[in-house]
Amino acid sequence: MRIERLERRTRLPGLFHIGASPYARRVTRHGKRADLIVHEQEPFNAETGLAGLAEGPVTATDAFYVRDHGPVPEIDHAAWRLHVHGLVERELDLSIATLREAFREREVTATLQCAGNRRAGLIAVRDIPGEAPWGPGATGTATWTGVALAEVLAVAGPLPEAAHVGLDGADVCAEATPAQRFGGSIPLDKACRPEVLLAWAMNGEPLQPVHGAPLRVVVPGYIGARSVKWLERIEVRSKPWEGYFQHVVYRLLAEDETPGPGVGMPLGLIALNSDVLSPADGETVAAGPVEVRGYAFAGGERHVARVDVSLDGGVTWAQADLLEDLGRWAWRHWRITVELAPGEHEILVRAWDSSAATQPEDEAALWNPKGYVNNARPRIRVRAA
Amino acid sequence: MRIERLERRTRLPGLFHIGASPYARRVTRHGKRADLIVHEQEPFNAETGLAGLAEGPVTATDAFYVRDHGPVPEIDHAAWRLHVHGLVERELDLSIATLREAFREREVTATLQCAGNRRAGLIAVRDIPGEAPWGPGATGTATWTGVALAEVLAVAGPLPEAAHVGLDGADVCAEATPAQRFGGSIPLDKACRPEVLLAWAMNGEPLQPVHGAPLRVVVPGYIGARSVKWLERIEVRSKPWEGYFQHVVYRLLAEDETPGPGVGMPLGLIALNSDVLSPADGETVAAGPVEVRGYAFAGGERHVARVDVSLDGGVTWAQADLLEDLGRWAWRHWRITVELAPGEHEILVRAWDSSAATQPEDEAALWNPKGYVNNARPRIRVRAA
Repeated sequence: MRIERLERRTRLPGLFHIGASPYARRVTRHGKRADLIVHEQEPFNAETGLAGLAEGPVTATDAFYVRDHGPVPEIDHAAWRLHVHGLVERELDLSIATLREAFREREVTATLQCAGNRRAGLIAVRDIPGEAPWGPGATGTATWTGVALAEVLAVAGPLPEAAHVGLDGADVCAEATPAQRFGGSIPLDKACRPEVLLAWAMNGEPLQPVHGAPLRVVVPGYIGARSVKWLERIEVRSKPWEGYFQHVVYRLLAEDETPGPGVGMPLGLIALNSDVLSPADGETVAAGPVEVRGYAFAGGERHVARVDVSLDGGVTWAQADLLEDLGRWAWRHWRITVELAPGEHEILVRAWDSSAATQPEDEAALWNPKGYVNNARPRIRVRAA
Repeated sequence: MRIERLERRTRLPGLFHIGASPYARRVTRHGKRADLIVHEQEPFNAETGLAGLAEGPVTATDAFYVRDHGPVPEIDHAAWRLHVHGLVERELDLSIATLREAFREREVTATLQCAGNRRAGLIAVRDIPGEAPWGPGATGTATWTGVALAEVLAVAGPLPEAAHVGLDGADVCAEATPAQRFGGSIPLDKACRPEVLLAWAMNGEPLQPVHGAPLRVVVPGYIGARSVKWLERIEVRSKPWEGYFQHVVYRLLAEDETPGPGVGMPLGLIALNSDVLSPADGETVAAGPVEVRGYAFAGGERHVARVDVSLDGGVTWAQADLLEDLGRWAWRHWRITVELAPGEHEILVRAWDSSAATQPEDEAALWNPKGYVNNARPRIRVRAA
C-alpha cells in the first residue's frame, strides 16, 4: 500500500516542486496533497476530492479531510500529559510513554465523518451563511493505533454517578462564545466499548500535527466532532458536555429554530449515508457500460447491508456489489456497471443498513439552519455520448 | 393500572358472557381482549387495535399482540429444563427454580415489534400472498422480568470461537420446510448486553402460555422473531442460525428476489418507525383543535429524538410532544394538537432517531416479497366537519 502511494505521488508533480512549478499554488499545507478542496486556510478546513476517496476503502493520510475549529496548537510533546479527572476514584496524569507501556496497543480501522458532510446539497436548497459548503469528502477511513479509552478509564475508576466522558482538546476556537477549547462528550457506555481509542498513529505512521498529535480520540460510529484532537483532558461526568461544540452547535435544529444553548437534538451517532464517487455529477461519459462507484456508511453499531442504484428515478433498482469489508467500523465502497444509452441520465442511489433502514428521499426536507446530516439519497446527472 | 383495566373490562360485556351474548364471537382466545384484530386462529396471530395501543406506553397484557408460527406447545413446567450447549466450556440444564435462585432478577421495559408490523401498507401497494395484513398493532411495550442471558452464558463459558447465540423454542411450525421448531440467533456481543433477558414474567404477572411460558427470550431493539418463546435450548455457535426462521424468512428481499436459503438481508435490529394511533385513518373529527397521537420507536441502541407532523404534505412541520420516557428500550408515545378547518386533511408524520436519521417517504418503494420493515412515514386522511 505504501509503495503504491509513493508511486502515485510521483505522478503529482506539484508535491515535489513547491514554489517552482505552475502547480505550486495548488499545494496545500499540513502535508496534504494538492487536490484537496480547501474550504478555509485558518483554521484549516479541507475535504478529500472524489478521486482521493475513490482510490480505495482506506483513505491516504495525505488525502484525508481536516475539520478544524481553531489553529493547530503547538504542543511540547515531552511536557504533554493526559489529565484524567472528574467522577473517578483517582486522577491520572499520563505521558505518551506511560500510555504505550501500561496499556495494550490496539488497532481499529474506522471511518470518520463530519456532521457537515454533503452540506453543499442543503446549501443548494437554501443558503446557510457562515457554514462551509462541504461536499461528500468530509469523510474518510483510516487505521488508527493507540490504546482503548476503556482501559484508561478502568484505571481511573469511574464513580457510580459517572455517565458521560468529556474530551477536551488543546485547540482554542475563537468562533465559540466564549472562545474555548474544542471539546465534547460521549456516553460512558460507548466510552467503555473496545473500539474507542486514544490514538497516536494513523495508517501506520505517527499522527500528524493537523490530525491531533500527540494524541487524539477516535470514536467509531460517532460524528467526527467527538473524535477530539490534541486531547489533553478527560473529564468523567454525570451530564453531557456543556461546552459550545456540543451544547450549542453540532445539534440538529428544526427548520425554524435558532442555534442556542440546548436547542435542538444533540448529534452523536452517525446516520446512514452514501454518495457517488464516480462518475462525477455533470460528467460526460462514453455511452455503453459505465462503472458507477461510491461509498456507504452506517454509524453506531450498524453496518451497510445493501446499496441499490436506479436509472429510472426509483421505479426499479439494481444491487451494487459491496467491495472490501474492513470491519464493523468502516464504510463500504460499492460498484455497479450500468448500461447508458446516449443522452442524459440521472443516477439515484440508496443504501440500506443492517436494521433494513434506508435513506430518506427528499434532500430539501432535510434542510436545517446549521446544515448537518444531509443523508438524502444521492442523485447525479451524467451525459452519455 | 390493574384496577383501571378491570373497570375497562366491565364495559366489554363479551368477555363475561361467552356464548351468551351477541358479542361472544368477538372474544378471542388466550386471555386476550375482544378487540384484538385476529389474523389467524391456529397458529394464533392477533394484533392490538389502535385503542389498545393508545391507552398508554405500557401495553396491557390482555391487549398485547401475538405472532405465532406454530400452535402454543404444551409444556410440563416441572420437567422443563433450559439446555445450554454448543461452544461452551460446560453444558447446563437449568430449571426455572435454579434460574431464579442462581441469578439476579432483572426487569426491563422493552418494546417488541414484529418485522411484519404495518405490512398492510405494503399490501395496499401490491398483494403479498400468504402473509397476514398486519396493521400498526404488531408491536407493544411491556415490563419483562427474568435474568440476564449474559449471566447464564458466563456460567456456561463461551469458547473463543463463539460468535452467535442460538435460541430454540418448543413450538413446532408446519409452515417451515422441513417442519421445525421456531428458532433464531443473535450476535454474542448483543447476547452479553444486560438488557437481553430470559423472562418468566410480563407486566408483573407470570408469563402466559401464549407469550412463551415458562420462559422466553426478550431481545430489546431486535425484531420480535428473536425474542424466542417457549425457550428450551440455547446453542452457542460460531455462525448465525441456519434454521428456516432466520436463514430463509425474516430476511429483507429486493423486489425481484425469491425467498430461499441465504437470499436477502437478515433482519435483526429494528428500523426507526412510527404510526398514528388517533385519529384513525378515514375518521371524521370535529373541526377546530384536534389531538393527534401516535408512537415512534428506534431499534438497536438508538432512541427517538423528535417526531414531526405536517398538514401540508411535508412543506412545513411542527414538533410533537414526546410523552413518558420508559427508558432506552421502549418506544415513545407522542401527541400534538393541530388546528383543522372543515374539509379533508392529510396528516403526515416523520420520526427522527438519535443519529438524526428520519424515515423514508415512499412506501411503495419499500415493497418487498415478504412484506417486512414498512417504516415509511405514516400518512392518514381525516375529514373535519
